[in-house]
Amino acid sequence: MKKALYTLIFGIAASHALAGDSAPTIASNADAIALVQTHANYVWTLVAAALVFFMQAGFAMVETGFTRAKNAVNIMMKNLMDFSMGSFFFWAIGFGLMFGVSSTGWIGTSGFFLSDWTPDGDPWVLAFWMFQVVFAATAATIVSGAMAERTKFVGYLAYSAILSAFIYPIFGSWAWGSLFNGSGWLEGLGFIDFAGSTVVHSIGGWVALAGAIVVGPRLGKFSKDGKARAIPGHNLPLAALGVFILWLGWFGFNPGSTTTADTSIAMIFVNTNLSAAMGAIAAMCTAWIMFGKPDIGMSLNGALAGLVGITAGCANVSPTSSIIIGLISGILVVLSVVFFDKIKIDDPVGAVSVHGVCGAWGTLAAGLFNMGGTTAGIIGVQLVGILACFAWAFGCGFIMFKIISMTIGLRVSPEEEMEGLDYGEHGGTAYPDFQKASHM
Amino acid sequence: MKKALYTLIFGIAASHALAGDSAPTIASNADAIALVQTHANYVWTLVAAALVFFMQAGFAMVETGFTRAKNAVNIMMKNLMDFSMGSFFFWAIGFGLMFGVSSTGWIGTSGFFLSDWTPDGDPWVLAFWMFQVVFAATAATIVSGAMAERTKFVGYLAYSAILSAFIYPIFGSWAWGSLFNGSGWLEGLGFIDFAGSTVVHSIGGWVALAGAIVVGPRLGKFSKDGKARAIPGHNLPLAALGVFILWLGWFGFNPGSTTTADTSIAMIFVNTNLSAAMGAIAAMCTAWIMFGKPDIGMSLNGALAGLVGITAGCANVSPTSSIIIGLISGILVVLSVVFFDKIKIDDPVGAVSVHGVCGAWGTLAAGLFNMGGTTAGIIGVQLVGILACFAWAFGCGFIMFKIISMTIGLRVSPEEEMEGLDYGEHGGTAYPDFQKASHM
Amino acid sequence: MKKALYTLIFGIAASHALAGDSAPTIASNADAIALVQTHANYVWTLVAAALVFFMQAGFAMVETGFTRAKNAVNIMMKNLMDFSMGSFFFWAIGFGLMFGVSSTGWIGTSGFFLSDWTPDGDPWVLAFWMFQVVFAATAATIVSGAMAERTKFVGYLAYSAILSAFIYPIFGSWAWGSLFNGSGWLEGLGFIDFAGSTVVHSIGGWVALAGAIVVGPRLGKFSKDGKARAIPGHNLPLAALGVFILWLGWFGFNPGSTTTADTSIAMIFVNTNLSAAMGAIAAMCTAWIMFGKPDIGMSLNGALAGLVGITAGCANVSPTSSIIIGLISGILVVLSVVFFDKIKIDDPVGAVSVHGVCGAWGTLAAGLFNMGGTTAGIIGVQLVGILACFAWAFGCGFIMFKIISMTIGLRVSPEEEMEGLDYGEHGGTAYPDFQKASHM
Repeated sequence: MKKALYTLIFGIAASHALAGDSAPTIASNADAIALVQTHANYVWTLVAAALVFFMQAGFAMVETGFTRAKNAVNIMMKNLMDFSMGSFFFWAIGFGLMFGVSSTGWIGTSGFFLSDWTPDGDPWVLAFWMFQVVFAATAATIVSGAMAERTKFVGYLAYSAILSAFIYPIFGSWAWGSLFNGSGWLEGLGFIDFAGSTVVHSIGGWVALAGAIVVGPRLGKFSKDGKARAIPGHNLPLAALGVFILWLGWFGFNPGSTTTADTSIAMIFVNTNLSAAMGAIAAMCTAWIMFGKPDIGMSLNGALAGLVGITAGCANVSPTSSIIIGLISGILVVLSVVFFDKIKIDDPVGAVSVHGVCGAWGTLAAGLFNMGGTTAGIIGVQLVGILACFAWAFGCGFIMFKIISMTIGLRVSPEEEMEGLDYGEHGGTAYPDFQKASHM
Repeated sequence: MKKALYTLIFGIAASHALAGDSAPTIASNADAIALVQTHANYVWTLVAAALVFFMQAGFAMVETGFTRAKNAVNIMMKNLMDFSMGSFFFWAIGFGLMFGVSSTGWIGTSGFFLSDWTPDGDPWVLAFWMFQVVFAATAATIVSGAMAERTKFVGYLAYSAILSAFIYPIFGSWAWGSLFNGSGWLEGLGFIDFAGSTVVHSIGGWVALAGAIVVGPRLGKFSKDGKARAIPGHNLPLAALGVFILWLGWFGFNPGSTTTADTSIAMIFVNTNLSAAMGAIAAMCTAWIMFGKPDIGMSLNGALAGLVGITAGCANVSPTSSIIIGLISGILVVLSVVFFDKIKIDDPVGAVSVHGVCGAWGTLAAGLFNMGGTTAGIIGVQLVGILACFAWAFGCGFIMFKIISMTIGLRVSPEEEMEGLDYGEHGGTAYPDFQKASHM
Repeated sequence: MKKALYTLIFGIAASHALAGDSAPTIASNADAIALVQTHANYVWTLVAAALVFFMQAGFAMVETGFTRAKNAVNIMMKNLMDFSMGSFFFWAIGFGLMFGVSSTGWIGTSGFFLSDWTPDGDPWVLAFWMFQVVFAATAATIVSGAMAERTKFVGYLAYSAILSAFIYPIFGSWAWGSLFNGSGWLEGLGFIDFAGSTVVHSIGGWVALAGAIVVGPRLGKFSKDGKARAIPGHNLPLAALGVFILWLGWFGFNPGSTTTADTSIAMIFVNTNLSAAMGAIAAMCTAWIMFGKPDIGMSLNGALAGLVGITAGCANVSPTSSIIIGLISGILVVLSVVFFDKIKIDDPVGAVSVHGVCGAWGTLAAGLFNMGGTTAGIIGVQLVGILACFAWAFGCGFIMFKIISMTIGLRVSPEEEMEGLDYGEHGGTAYPDFQKASHM
């Protein structure tokens, strides 16, 4: 183990080690400075990746907290597996499509199985993969919430693989891929989406919308006269914990997207925090006015809405603008949840509203509140990106879910749904030591 | 997105980028070195801020775990909202009062709405705000525990806003504000409170004491003959998780208070950890001796007591002293909880004992165990700070809660309290799928 | 408080501060560069230590989630106390034995009570202690899972102290201690265990095996005809949360073991993640084939198996090899759990399989997949290390548990075990507000 060895090197002869064992010169010092900055970049990018990874736990807690006890094992398994399968498929396929050094102009054509890296090559490819894989997995996880409590586990495995391997990285290469592979037509137009309001959250949100439509609402969600019935979540402390974990993870998600240790991360932290805070406040107030009580589900989703909303513009809008962006996100998410209930699309955790709708809003806002000034051209490009995302994600999602539905099957049987997916799909139950309430 | 761009810059020509695109000189190298150190300071300070932010989740879990299931939604909402409202009010008002560049000598008079920052100005103001806002929110959260299970939600929103906007930052400017705004009379005396045993924890603890007195004990807490009745917490695994999260967060709270990436953080980590560990051990042993069993509530609070106790002196006492400070904190917190029960002040989670009492002890200990030597003068100044904090926080808190009580109301009705605040205040329940125990 | 002071120094005159207040020279710049790198090393090592610390919460959640509600308080107390006691004993004794500057050749003989550090000495000793203490505590925690639900609390305190003070550090000094104290015969042979598959995980796993044998199976685990009965865990969302926390913590555990901020951490992150992901997938598939359903307990343990498996070789195998290592770990852990059930060793959480067996596999794999090439000699040394670990840990553990069993007692009474350890040992219960299921 090298632990102590490095210590001695740096304690006794660090400058020589950096300067290559000969007397330092101006040029060798300049190289050494660049190397130390590179080290700081690696540390920052990878610590940020670790924080983004932890968002998987946040999504798992939010989704299980907002749904019923009888499906908790299933939701945990989905969250564990979309990250695990996502890691595998983003390693094998997705990263190459999104950031491969060779490219068709629309997708990358090299770098599969991390083959753009060699043991004696630039390790930055690895750091960059690590930061990107946690983003890819986030998109996959978003979908699971909207389709919770009635989706077959094998169907879920299939679509989370397809999402991580194809749907997410191909769109990603249009918006973020240019410097590695020469494609990136959206970025070429000047599209602003610093950390992924569109690239990650709207992609996930619109695939989720397609999934919620194809799989259909849960039994009992809509009464015969068409009214939506609230199906309360079974563990709100876990849901709240999940939101706190997601908020924490977003301090990696947004400022980590610099992939550089520099002073610009400060404003990104502040913007992220202010928008989240205002989202929570605005959603609480909106729910209070509309429903008469400060509802916890809406308030928690308001924080997430504020986070999604600031993700595109976190690096190019001011803190004051972040306050406004978060505030509107918080109002929007409540109205959107009510809207989807009204048109009878059943999204148990509000994932489409939080990630799809507020992702689109955030992308527009990144143009509207651009600190360097805004023009009709900028707004136009943002709208192009928003619409392209919707067309791609909803279109691909709809076709994919239809095919899965017609082949391996997308929905469990009504009997299994009533009993809960934990028994039917996984042969267990999440809380065997507790007496269930009589309605369960 | 700049992800790949920065990579190329630093991979290919980092030294030139840092040296400003011309050949490096000794002077340009020296500037570049300072810049890389600055980058490291930003990363460290902001990662630490993220860890401190996560303490909100820890407080939420501890508070809900130590109280009853029927109030869990309410406690989550309070924790979400004190951070969200705290972020807003510390942005609008608090930061200016505490660290504004202009000052009356007692409070800052500029910097409201983050106006000390401009897009072309020093981004350090933003990094510093981010680190300070999570401290301000911590003070607010402490209060919620002591007043749990009977406080009206609107009253809570009111006092958490006042705390974040006025009570916390004004005291803070006396102890920490000097270099930014010329005030800071306590710091001028030589008051030692490196990371906030007094400035954050005692402020929160003494406002909590005032709140617990004004709102009065929970129904059934004290029997007619005056004996305290234990009201057990409903989810001890969550409480334990909360303590682990807080312990983790304290590795941002204490060493992050350097706001500099340097070697001094090592001792602060070690001191923080040793004091927490000894606090847990000492509280467990004390409870074992006094009550006959190693009680989990006391042990968990012992860890927190050790953390609060080392917060003032973490940078100026030795690891061996930290062992002693933590040990005394752990004993003290058990005796203090018993004492407040005896004088019939109902603090459901022991917040006054952990944060108020052990915060005072820790501030005294920072003088007693000062590595540079201790004098009667040092001890005297520490006592002045401790007393000033008590007078300010308890005084302001008492007046504030009395006014809230006489206007918008501080306490829910006895019927609502019996039923649980989750239904009355938020129209929901935290665990609808589980059968409640018959006593509930 | 120095917060603002440092800011000013670095904002205004950072280069001078680093260069010692005189005009910079080539030599002073070289020294300053080394100092900034040192600062980055401290930040990285200590942030990693904080992540590893958080694994305590992960272990606590996994262990309580996989066991019964009636023992949840006891499990929380054990996890809190093994870290607290471990911190104390590793401070007083363990660190000196493992890394003391003076040495007998087999164990260190100085550095007890952190005495290798002095206020004017190198603070790296403190940073290094902090990173090592969280590793020592991990070894202790592993044992608690295998002996859960029937072990006396005082017996637990005794063995966790002995483990942290003697068993772990003495083996550790053989494998990692050489540069500080001149011993380290295993490292001298060329033994590869970068982050502790053997040194931490197998040590914990084989002591756990000894403990599970000596304390005996839980009442009702094996029927009279010898068949193993499943005793389902009481809170699977908490178990899943625990696994996510552990996965996060491993991003400190493995790459943090560089204790240096450099580019090598990128590959370690990637390897860690890929192996964990493949472990989860492989264990799920294995369980699906063997038992007919994708079991959550096996899948979660599969992720942990992959993490343990890559720990030894994370810095010297390629990402593609990590895929294979994780895959085999995931298969192995399921087979191992079945095997230990068959030979009637009751390990409620699968700790022996995850940490003992997969730790051994990972250590072998670090030789088999060595990027620099592998030889019979390398494999031989890895086997020596694996066997030495088993002999030492199982041997010491067996003797220790026998002695504890014959003196202060290792197992609670059958009555207490039936009722749950929470009442008997700690006088409380984890979930008083919920109705227990009728079988409880």
